[in-house]
Formats: sequence, C-alpha cells, structure tokens
Amino acid sequence: MTDPRIASLERAVHGLRLKTDPADLEHYGRDWTRRWTPAPLAIALPASVAEVQAVVQWANAEGVAVVPSGGRTGLSGGAVAANGELVLSLERMNQVLDFNAVDRTLTVQAGMVLEAVHNAALEQGLIYPVDFAARGSCSIGGNIATNAGGIRVIRYGNTREWIAGLKVVTGAGEVLDLNRALVKNSSGYDFRQLLVGSEGTLGIVVEATLRLTEPPPPANVMLLALPSFEVLMQVFSAFRARLRLEAFEFFTDRALGHVLAHGAQAPFDQVYPFYVVTEYAAGDDAQEAAALAAFEDCMTQGWVLDGVISQSEAQAQQLWRLREGITEAVARYKPYKNDISVRISAMPAFLERTQALLGEAYPDFEVVWFGHIGDGNLHINVLKPDGYGDAEFITACEHVTKLLAQVLSEFEGSISAEHGIGLVKKPYLEGTRSAAEIALMRGVKQVFDPKGLLNPGKLFDA
Amino acid sequence: MTDPRIASLERAVHGLRLKTDPADLEHYGRDWTRRWTPAPLAIALPASVAEVQAVVQWANAEGVAVVPSGGRTGLSGGAVAANGELVLSLERMNQVLDFNAVDRTLTVQAGMVLEAVHNAALEQGLIYPVDFAARGSCSIGGNIATNAGGIRVIRYGNTREWIAGLKVVTGAGEVLDLNRALVKNSSGYDFRQLLVGSEGTLGIVVEATLRLTEPPPPANVMLLALPSFEVLMQVFSAFRARLRLEAFEFFTDRALGHVLAHGAQAPFDQVYPFYVVTEYAAGDDAQEAAALAAFEDCMTQGWVLDGVISQSEAQAQQLWRLREGITEAVARYKPYKNDISVRISAMPAFLERTQALLGEAYPDFEVVWFGHIGDGNLHINVLKPDGYGDAEFITACEHVTKLLAQVLSEFEGSISAEHGIGLVKKPYLEGTRSAAEIALMRGVKQVFDPKGLLNPGKLFDA
Repeated sequence: MTDPRIASLERAVHGLRLKTDPADLEHYGRDWTRRWTPAPLAIALPASVAEVQAVVQWANAEGVAVVPSGGRTGLSGGAVAANGELVLSLERMNQVLDFNAVDRTLTVQAGMVLEAVHNAALEQGLIYPVDFAARGSCSIGGNIATNAGGIRVIRYGNTREWIAGLKVVTGAGEVLDLNRALVKNSSGYDFRQLLVGSEGTLGIVVEATLRLTEPPPPANVMLLALPSFEVLMQVFSAFRARLRLEAFEFFTDRALGHVLAHGAQAPFDQVYPFYVVTEYAAGDDAQEAAALAAFEDCMTQGWVLDGVISQSEAQAQQLWRLREGITEAVARYKPYKNDISVRISAMPAFLERTQALLGEAYPDFEVVWFGHIGDGNLHINVLKPDGYGDAEFITACEHVTKLLAQVLSEFEGSISAEHGIGLVKKPYLEGTRSAAEIALMRGVKQVFDPKGLLNPGKLFDA
Repeated sequence: MTDPRIASLERAVHGLRLKTDPADLEHYGRDWTRRWTPAPLAIALPASVAEVQAVVQWANAEGVAVVPSGGRTGLSGGAVAANGELVLSLERMNQVLDFNAVDRTLTVQAGMVLEAVHNAALEQGLIYPVDFAARGSCSIGGNIATNAGGIRVIRYGNTREWIAGLKVVTGAGEVLDLNRALVKNSSGYDFRQLLVGSEGTLGIVVEATLRLTEPPPPANVMLLALPSFEVLMQVFSAFRARLRLEAFEFFTDRALGHVLAHGAQAPFDQVYPFYVVTEYAAGDDAQEAAALAAFEDCMTQGWVLDGVISQSEAQAQQLWRLREGITEAVARYKPYKNDISVRISAMPAFLERTQALLGEAYPDFEVVWFGHIGDGNLHINVLKPDGYGDAEFITACEHVTKLLAQVLSEFEGSISAEHGIGLVKKPYLEGTRSAAEIALMRGVKQVFDPKGLLNPGKLFDA
C-alpha cells in the first residue's frame, strides 16, 4: 500500500516525475558512504526551478523532510536518506542555460555532471578549473553544496571562488537569485557565499553561474620518490619557489601498491616510501630549466631519491593515474576515511603527531595516506581487515577519529577539508567550530528553513 | 552634566580609553558623506579584543547602540553616529600580529590603515593587492566590512578573496575565530564570508589574517583618448584579449578637467571626450609588442584617437594621478555619488540608458563620470551648483537615483558596487535585493545581534 503522501505530492505538483520502486529507493537513498540503510519515502525528479519550488512548498505544507540529491558521490553521508525523507534529485536538470563570452561565465542547471561542465567550458575555449577524480559522476550542485576542492586548489582555489551567481530554493520554498554574476556588489549580506558549503541544509542549489578562465599554459607532470615524510615540505617549498604549480599531491608506497595491484604500471624499478606527483607550467625553456633545477636541488639535498618527467600527454595521464586511482583501488576494503586539514605551515608538526597517533591506534589496520600537501589537506584511508565486521570496524575507527579530532583542535585544523560534515563527521564538528559558531549555525538554519525540513540531521542536530 | 552611562561604561571596562569632547564627538561621529550631524554618546577606543568584547557586553546590558569605526572614509554613511550611539573606534588596534612565510599570510588588527598593510606585506617581499585612492586613511577592518574593491579588482578581485581568517565580536558579545587561515575547510557555514561586506551590522571585525601574493611582473601604464562611450567595450576587449590587465579605468573629459584645474598636467595637447588608463604586465618584449599591437589595432579601428605609454615609474604615477585625483578634485562641489554595477556584458546597453537618463534628469547639473569598466562598475558624481542648498540638491539627486535604481533593477545590477549600502543607499536596496533576501538579512541580523545594537539603521531598518 502506497503512502498517501505520494498521491498528495502528485496532486500538488502536477506532472512531477516520481520513483518509488524499491531499487530506486535504494539507489537514490545513499551516497558513497554505504553506511546507512536507504529508506526514502520516494524520489522526486523535478525538471524545472518551478517544480523544485513546488515540491519544497508541498513539503512545508505536509511536514515532509527533503534530501537534495546530485551525483551522490559524497563521502560524508550528506545525501543519505535513511529516515523516510523525500529525495529531490536534480539529475534531470542537467543543461547549459547560457554562455557569456564577455563575462566569461557559464550558467548551468545544478544537476549537470562536473565533466560535462568541463566540456562545455572547453567548447568555448575556456576552462572551469575545479577538478577531482569523481568528475564523471558528481554534480555541480553537489560540488557547490560542499565547496568541493580537489587536485587543483593550490592553483585555482575551491569551488567557492568560481561561483558568480547562484539560484537556490530555500527551505521555506522561496527562490533566491543571488549575486546575478556581478563582479562587484556590496549590497548587504552575500548569501551566495553562505550557501556555498552549506550541504543542502539552507537551500537547494538549482542553477549556478560559473566563472570560467583561460586554459593554463602547457604543463608537465613530474613524479618524485621521497625517503620520508619529513622532507615533504622542503620539496614543496623548493618547487613552489621556482615553478607555477598547478598541483602538488603526495601518497605513500602503500597507496601506490594498491593502485599497482589494480593494474597500473610501476613508475620505478625500486620501491620508495613516499611519492609526490606535481604538475607545473612548462611552456618554455626557462620553465623547463627551473623544473630541472628544483629537481636537482632536491636530489642533492637528499630530499628526493628518484624522479620521472612526463614526455607526452599520455605519460602525464599515466603518472596522474597513480594518484587518482587510489580511491578506486582501495574501495573494496571499505575504507574508513578521514579528510582533514591544517594550515600549510602547521603540516610538518601535525604530520608527525598524526603518524605517531595512527601508528599506535591502528597497529593491526592498514592505513593508506595521500593528500594535497600544498593545501594542508590530508586523506587517511583505514582499510578494513578481512576478519572484521562492518560495525565493529567503524566503531574502532571512530574511537581513533575522536583522538584525531583532539589533535586537530590543538592545531586549529578542520575535521573536514573538502568532504563536508554530513552525518559521518557530525560527532566531531565541535573540535573544529566553537559552540558559539554552532549555535549561530542553528540560528541561521532556522531563518532559511524555519520548519527544519531541508536535509535534517546533517551537519548538526536541530 | 555627563551622561550616567559613560560612568557605567568606565566602571564596566576598567582602563578603557574614552573621548567625550565635542570636537571628538564630531570627528568620530561622521564619515566622508558629511550629510548627517554627528551626535554620538561617546567614543570608545579599546586596545584589545577583550576590551572590544567587554564594551559590546556592556552595550548589551545597557541597551546602548554601537557604531564600529575605522578610517571613516566611507561614502555611504555606514560609520555615521547621529543618534546617541557609542562609537567604537578600532584606531588603537593597528598592529601587525603575525607574518607566516609558508602560509603567505599577514595577521593584523582591524584598525591598521590599508597603506600600512601594503607596506608590511612589501617588507616581506609580498603584496596585499587590494588598493584604492583612500589607502592612506581607510582601515583594513572597514575594507572588510564593505568588501572594498578598488582599482585592481580586474586582476585580484575584491577584499573578500584575500581574507584567510577573521576574528569578530558579534552583536551578542561573543568572539568568533573564523576559518583560522585554512585553505580547505568544509565544516559548516562559512561565517567569515558572511561577515565580509556586512557593514558592521553582524559583528565587529577585530583581527584579520590576510592572504598575500607575489608582486606582479613589471607593468606599464597607458593612457588612451577615446571618441565616445560606445567604443569603450571594444577597446576593453582588444586589450584584455592581448594583455594581462592589472587595471582598466575610464573617465570623462569633465572629470579630467577638474583634475587639471586641481594642478595636474594635461596629457595631450588636444581635448578628447573620454579617456582610459590601463595598467598591464610588460616584463618582456613580447608583452610590450602585444600592448603596441592592441593600441594600433584600436587606432586603426578609430576606437582610440591618441595615447601615451609610461616611460618611467614617475610617468606611470603621473598618468594614474589623472584618474585617482578625480574624487579629491571634485570634493569641494559636495558631489552626490552613485556607485553602481552591472554585469560587464550589460555595460554598453546600460551606459546608453544611463547616459540618456542622466542627461534628461540633470540638465542643469554637471555630471562627472568615471569607473572600473572591466568590473562593470560606474561612478557617477553629480556636482552641486553654487545656487543650491545642500538639502535641496540632495532631494533633487535622490529623485534621479530612484529612476536609476529602476534601470538597475531591469539590468539586474547593483545600487552599490563597492561603497556599501549604509544610510545613503538604504532606500534603494529593494531594487537590488529581493524582498525575500532582505527578510532573510533581517533574520540573520537577529541571530548575530539579537538586541539590534550593532550599527542599527544601516543597510536596512530593523
């Protein structure tokens, strides 16, 4: 017997596409966390801003909670619907609405997949520079909801920097057209900025006007082999001082091992404890010479033991795959993930403390490290050993996250650099944001979503 | 007889420096608008975050309104205290607190003058790139409160882009330490971004951690003479396509006339209707050639009638003075100012409409135009004729601003590009922000400042 609220929604929003098959409820009710059992009321797939607004207005009238849904590639449970919520999927709203060559902006619907955004920009001879491994599945609306970062933050910043305008439907069902692509607009509170990173708890992003930029000059990719964690910041400084870095990523030999087991080709004959993959502008002889000088300097200092420079686009992609393939390669071990950040300058001391903590806390678990070292962002993947049950493993890891949160609090870092808080990191928010800040967040939530219907239970409890 | 609240404040915040002389009340009670009669209760000059907090807590206990005060160079009345408010001046909190070479950040107290911030950055071999003519008087806290823009937005963006961390005291008297200079931090609502541009109505900025960057390559300055408004965007496109622009500013012959009357040297033998001053990277022969090519292309097209390129730093400064001297040169005419913006691509049609509107509305007034054309930002200064009284003149101008606000609303522009709303533009906020947005602003204000004591009456009425 169907829930009577579904018939009520169909009457209220004439022509709205709905899915209620058990397979659909499961598919749309979860994200990449796989920790909660999906249990949504139904899946609404609106095709227009007006339909989104009508759904939210209906939800207010009926008191039904709504979970906004993009590509569901999130790693913090932000898009999970496990409590009878209505999932509002933006996937049918996936079109380019406008390109403006003078403003260098691309206006898109929120359900557009990031890779499609990249391609639409390239068709105009420009780039949308925010990028990460989930590009083929994640949606731009989800990127905005978590202020997604990725592999080019060191050069281009986070998603926030590229949002010229934002159309949202608030929790109260009002449509806001925020900033409208103005370069300069000092006319009161910038709610566009408030909405970026609010994880669907204040409003549903329905359209975005993205800033585009010129493609970067030709770049080379270099893979470096390092003897230890301790020299990582020195290598970073040596390269940053000489080159225009587009990316600077590190990973451990354990991480590489998984990617190689997954089919990639070994970059060196020998095994080294740590690796860096860096991309840098290399359009002319001076830049190529500077890159070589940085490399040689690091070799002389003993900070780098070996290296390889891409000689072709194909080889550049091959080197990148060693880093980008990690998440996929370890996925079958159901890794418990930490995505943390500190100030760049705090990295060395923080790495030392964290290494010691994890070595002690996880004597039996395999820990795979990688990260965006130039942004102060570390990814820690703890792999589930075969003997462990899912719940038992998560409980063990959460105990360590509590200790990690304390260290982060000491170092004034963040429990979530780019994945968001969602459900997974909610217990640790207090280590990163003060009680006063969290109280203000609750107050602001109340202003935008008076009935508390948008993504309830995510970020903080009401 | 002194107000008993002053004694109460002295008791509550032991050692707080206070000023109550009539001359001080007048000096600290107004900004550059000169439209309101200053009438503050007193001037508090705290020396620490703790003192600021104590003052705000006292204000909450006593129900006294507080006006945060920086360099008071504002042009929208945001720092005016005309209703018995306590002025809280940050001028004694003007020190550098920290420089971090790895993070490339400078932490300063909010009362530091912008020029002193520039110098502190240069001492470290880096720059803080936000810049404008009031640099010698305005404070960094005031810049943050209005998200100040200025002459290098086309290259570096507004103040917002350079704030890595922000310490504020909320209207409720709580100290928030926002974002703490993290590059990546996806842990809930980014209140740092909400506070930037909030004009002292949510919290008082007490400290800021500023991002610094490398000095730009050597630049040249070019002054161009144009035959008409209509070709302005073509010239902009021709230059932007070929050069890395650091600035692209236009002004009218009327504006130039005032600067010349004020003592500057005429750049050309002839008079032309419009001028552009542009600064662009010119570190090598290729860049110099590109600049010449852009210039010659514009000459051939008839878009540019004459030009001069700086041959020295001194000449570059001379050319800049022609643009930067305008505000000072017209100050004695008590100009009525509009500071408006539209999307860059909407500029040509908007300029045409605005020119027609102002020509019709101000047949008897002299109108001085200049602006940041590459940001879609226009400054309109209407000069008061000798025969007019202050109030009569303002009434006449406000009538025209109403018409202008309607045009802006049609073009989806902003009534304030960079000056802020304050008192001056409050009546026109509804043309730029929707009723729903303004209602949400009131709600958010209530969350941060429950008693409505911080800068009351600015931006909107409670």
